Amino acid sequence: MKKILVSVIAGSDSDLPVIEVVVDTLKKFGIGYDVKILSAHRTPEDVTKYVKSAPKKGIKVIIAMAGGAAHLAGVIASQTVLPVIGVPVETKTLKGLDSLLSTVQMPGGVPVATVAIGKGGAKNAAILAAQILGTANIKMSQKIASFKKGLAKSVRLKNIKLKI
Amino acid sequence: MKKILVSVIAGSDSDLPVIEVVVDTLKKFGIGYDVKILSAHRTPEDVTKYVKSAPKKGIKVIIAMAGGAAHLAGVIASQTVLPVIGVPVETKTLKGLDSLLSTVQMPGGVPVATVAIGKGGAKNAAILAAQILGTANIKMSQKIASFKKGLAKSVRLKNIKLKI
Amino acid sequence: MKKILVSVIAGSDSDLPVIEVVVDTLKKFGIGYDVKILSAHRTPEDVTKYVKSAPKKGIKVIIAMAGGAAHLAGVIASQTVLPVIGVPVETKTLKGLDSLLSTVQMPGGVPVATVAIGKGGAKNAAILAAQILGTANIKMSQKIASFKKGLAKSVRLKNIKLKI
Amino acid sequence: MKKILVSVIAGSDSDLPVIEVVVDTLKKFGIGYDVKILSAHRTPEDVTKYVKSAPKKGIKVIIAMAGGAAHLAGVIASQTVLPVIGVPVETKTLKGLDSLLSTVQMPGGVPVATVAIGKGGAKNAAILAAQILGTANIKMSQKIASFKKGLAKSVRLKNIKLKI
Amino acid sequence: MKKILVSVIAGSDSDLPVIEVVVDTLKKFGIGYDVKILSAHRTPEDVTKYVKSAPKKGIKVIIAMAGGAAHLAGVIASQTVLPVIGVPVETKTLKGLDSLLSTVQMPGGVPVATVAIGKGGAKNAAILAAQILGTANIKMSQKIASFKKGLAKSVRLKNIKLKI
Amino acid sequence: MKKILVSVIAGSDSDLPVIEVVVDTLKKFGIGYDVKILSAHRTPEDVTKYVKSAPKKGIKVIIAMAGGAAHLAGVIASQTVLPVIGVPVETKTLKGLDSLLSTVQMPGGVPVATVAIGKGGAKNAAILAAQILGTANIKMSQKIASFKKGLAKSVRLKNIKLKI
Amino acid sequence: MKKILVSVIAGSDSDLPVIEVVVDTLKKFGIGYDVKILSAHRTPEDVTKYVKSAPKKGIKVIIAMAGGAAHLAGVIASQTVLPVIGVPVETKTLKGLDSLLSTVQMPGGVPVATVAIGKGGAKNAAILAAQILGTANIKMSQKIASFKKGLAKSVRLKNIKLKI
Amino acid sequence: MKKILVSVIAGSDSDLPVIEVVVDTLKKFGIGYDVKILSAHRTPEDVTKYVKSAPKKGIKVIIAMAGGAAHLAGVIASQTVLPVIGVPVETKTLKGLDSLLSTVQMPGGVPVATVAIGKGGAKNAAILAAQILGTANIKMSQKIASFKKGLAKSVRLKNIKLKI
Repeated sequence: MKKILVSVIAGSDSDLPVIEVVVDTLKKFGIGYDVKILSAHRTPEDVTKYVKSAPKKGIKVIIAMAGGAAHLAGVIASQTVLPVIGVPVETKTLKGLDSLLSTVQMPGGVPVATVAIGKGGAKNAAILAAQILGTANIKMSQKIASFKKGLAKSVRLKNIKLKI
Repeated sequence: MKKILVSVIAGSDSDLPVIEVVVDTLKKFGIGYDVKILSAHRTPEDVTKYVKSAPKKGIKVIIAMAGGAAHLAGVIASQTVLPVIGVPVETKTLKGLDSLLSTVQMPGGVPVATVAIGKGGAKNAAILAAQILGTANIKMSQKIASFKKGLAKSVRLKNIKLKI
Repeated sequence: MKKILVSVIAGSDSDLPVIEVVVDTLKKFGIGYDVKILSAHRTPEDVTKYVKSAPKKGIKVIIAMAGGAAHLAGVIASQTVLPVIGVPVETKTLKGLDSLLSTVQMPGGVPVATVAIGKGGAKNAAILAAQILGTANIKMSQKIASFKKGLAKSVRLKNIKLKI
Repeated sequence: MKKILVSVIAGSDSDLPVIEVVVDTLKKFGIGYDVKILSAHRTPEDVTKYVKSAPKKGIKVIIAMAGGAAHLAGVIASQTVLPVIGVPVETKTLKGLDSLLSTVQMPGGVPVATVAIGKGGAKNAAILAAQILGTANIKMSQKIASFKKGLAKSVRLKNIKLKI
Repeated sequence: MKKILVSVIAGSDSDLPVIEVVVDTLKKFGIGYDVKILSAHRTPEDVTKYVKSAPKKGIKVIIAMAGGAAHLAGVIASQTVLPVIGVPVETKTLKGLDSLLSTVQMPGGVPVATVAIGKGGAKNAAILAAQILGTANIKMSQKIASFKKGLAKSVRLKNIKLKI
Repeated sequence: MKKILVSVIAGSDSDLPVIEVVVDTLKKFGIGYDVKILSAHRTPEDVTKYVKSAPKKGIKVIIAMAGGAAHLAGVIASQTVLPVIGVPVETKTLKGLDSLLSTVQMPGGVPVATVAIGKGGAKNAAILAAQILGTANIKMSQKIASFKKGLAKSVRLKNIKLKI
Repeated sequence: MKKILVSVIAGSDSDLPVIEVVVDTLKKFGIGYDVKILSAHRTPEDVTKYVKSAPKKGIKVIIAMAGGAAHLAGVIASQTVLPVIGVPVETKTLKGLDSLLSTVQMPGGVPVATVAIGKGGAKNAAILAAQILGTANIKMSQKIASFKKGLAKSVRLKNIKLKI
Repeated sequence: MKKILVSVIAGSDSDLPVIEVVVDTLKKFGIGYDVKILSAHRTPEDVTKYVKSAPKKGIKVIIAMAGGAAHLAGVIASQTVLPVIGVPVETKTLKGLDSLLSTVQMPGGVPVATVAIGKGGAKNAAILAAQILGTANIKMSQKIASFKKGLAKSVRLKNIKLKI
């Protein structure tokens, strides 16, 4: 069994499509993960309990995703020394601008590593987690290098196929 | 000694000028209050402890003020059945738009009664607290009525003095 | 027959889906309510008449919902000592940002307790009304506590069912 | 004595600098005016009384200026058949974006003729009033034509003086 | 044949649905109108020619609608002493915020009477035109009064039909 | 005497500090220029006359700067086949967001080459004019190459001086 | 074979519909072009290689389109003396406001000639390229003049067909 | 001599006050750092050279700060497997909203870990770097824990000193 290194926490199961993007990308890097639905507003005590126990379980990075007045990543960051990555989820009315500002504008002392709004951000959260793990794991770092080469290759392929 | 009914919580002592507006207005209505500096991000456990103990102390309404990724009011609201009033504090860069969205855009289930950004909002937070207490206290309700008459009178006075 | 404690006022019958969310939530808390279509711009006199008579009918809290240049909640708040909760309705073009700013940015002296844009906010308006009533009604306060436990339970259930 | 044709209403005497711009411009066109401090939120009844009596006094156009959740122009427009011009006053935090949206985004049925935020808008409110009066008054219409020529002349003068 | 008093100008025939709202509302008030597709950017000379000739045709008010960098109303206003009403048309990407700011933020000297974004604004542009004509035409002014009574009546009817 | 190739047009002499940035940068590239104060709203006929005559004078590029409902660049672009560069001038209230959207969001058919808000944009407008001239003038193109080397050199110098 | 004068670069093949608008418009002006998928973020080295080689191939203008944190146009502009036109591509969440600001707000020294968000902007990018080429090519300049006449003619035709 | 683990890169020496905040915070954690002025737009080749050589120097995390169309962090992220932290620098006109969106809205594949706008974000960038290093360094992780205790202690002290 793979060692669990990254914890993926979403505020609601309506975020499942976004969670899946994170999980699929973590899998590509062969990173063990743990997914939880935990709400900063509906189950604050469960959040605390889970976050406090994370380091003992070997968790190295926490990815939190939430929308609207998106407090989840900040609430987690306030209770751990682990790096916390925040994914601002798209909202129906303000399109995730509220989620973005609620996630990124943290006060001095308690950072949240914020990525783009929505699924693009979700994918990047997983890659950023890989990059963080890669700072102390040369194999992971090589996987990212090869992933990046793949990105470049796929762009080049598109160029070759391009018919305009 | 006056009974403490309203709790006034700010995320930082840089919010003192805003706190003072709240407190001055509460005093006008003769409402007992308790002021605390408690940070959702720096002292999450103290927030929990304080909020959990509030009802036993006779607190009826909590006013929370914070800026930026303003999680304080939402974090408090997630841990109490008391009505929580959120004052979005003005920020240097985004002028409090971040504070407003982080305070007001709460998910279904956990409301924060949000007022205007900055000092105008701080004054209104205290008046709203008085109005909430007034729903079960006819004297308070009369005080608000007379406060409102005072507002009207002062506008009328300005009209008389107006020289244009 | 249940005592009517909360008045639910919408600016237009196009807001019916949002009204229903408020009403359904009030029912869950067993709170008696009165629904009216009253427009700050089309029937200003009816608004005044209704608001002036509200306290005599035993109304304790008014929930007002409107979109665009959303003046309804502010116009009501200017004519009553009761706490007024404003729900900014989503708009087609500016997505409710106009409704939010028109509702929340009230001048010092006349607060509107503003909740989130749209249906999430509508639900929260009803819960906030319950919390306000709960400040003087221990049974209501217990209902909210149990509602909050229900929220937590449903999040926990989702965790158990989660298959990723 | 000049006949009073335009009513200039501000929500607060803090708007005096903006009122003065309106008044100075009305004077240039020789238009009689009446200035009042009337607040949609603090003296709603006075607003109603004044607006209802305006047509009998010979008022043809109403200019209303307010900031934040700027309801004044809309509240006036809801109670009169006269054209209402709204000047969104600049605000400290959101710089008048709140005032603009609260003034211009009126629902179908009750228009407010909105001009630019702040002093430029205040000047234009007076000119727009002159243009409205000019639709039935050829002398006024000629004054505007000559004012416009003056604008052009002053731009041309600046060109001649330009040293770059 | 009815006398033409209002000119309705749109920047593009893609604005037809919005034009129709204006025209339908003018018809309700029995106001003669003239509709033209004229573009500030594609046919600037035609705009000039038309606007210069408008007063001679008896036109009293011009309604201009455009989207994006919406210059039409401002360009017209720069060439006439008639009051110009600007309707900001909704845009695909910025939802009409660009149209609104381009229409309303006119420099001192050249006002555009701006109404709400989209169809609600289009309806209000026609009503505002009626109100402007009503300043010198008591019958028009009475029509508006009766239109406003109709608005109130329809709101009251909705209240009676309301089943919640 | 240098041949005049670039025309620099501002809507108001309050834009002088921004004009000077354009002019200083054009001088660095040895480009002849012509500065005019011409207002789309106050002197529309002068704008037309000037723009129509520009090609005959040998003008190749027009730089237009304006703020608020910034129509100048678009109005010029509608009357010429020359490339028009628009500089959105910073405004007091909306900080140039209105100027930017009014300048850049031009309809299909009539482009304005828009640069950044304010003085940075003014400098870039002149450089862009040089780049446009450089497409047919190898000496100009070499001057830009050497200007770019200068930029790089100055950054490198800062690195050497850096003491942290 | 036509000489290639304009290079059209997109960050992703999901931008194909926007690329086609550019290409179709370039064809109308008979301008030779070269289309490439090159990503500032996925193939930075390919961007550099391509941009460095562009002048030797006779390229005179580069059109770059990208969305979100749209760095492509800026990254290209930093490596060439050719004029670079940036098309901000519409994004799902922020509707291209992010793309616009990332493209247009370039620092002093490195301009990007920015056009409108989305397809309207794409069309205008091609026309702007034609205008730039037209500064040294009288035939191209005549084509633009005749294109502009076509625009005017089509607006006039719409007027004739208009049935309201 | 301390091992250099974090690279701090700013786009301009006008960012020095922000750089100092990063550096001061890194010092508190005893982290070796390297400061460079490197511009994505003025010295793209120097950026590439530096970034490519970073891993060999032992650099584990790169902090990049830039304002406006802030491409620096993204351009760096496109050329390295190291985690890149982006600090959006406050701008004069749009207050850093442009910097924030240009930094955070990165496309899928190339994340930038974005923190808050301005000095608060700069401080948090350094703390986030410490947290990333702490994932593989228990001493660093303990330092962060003790830093967090210090934050809490200072909030508690403020509470004790509070005189209201």
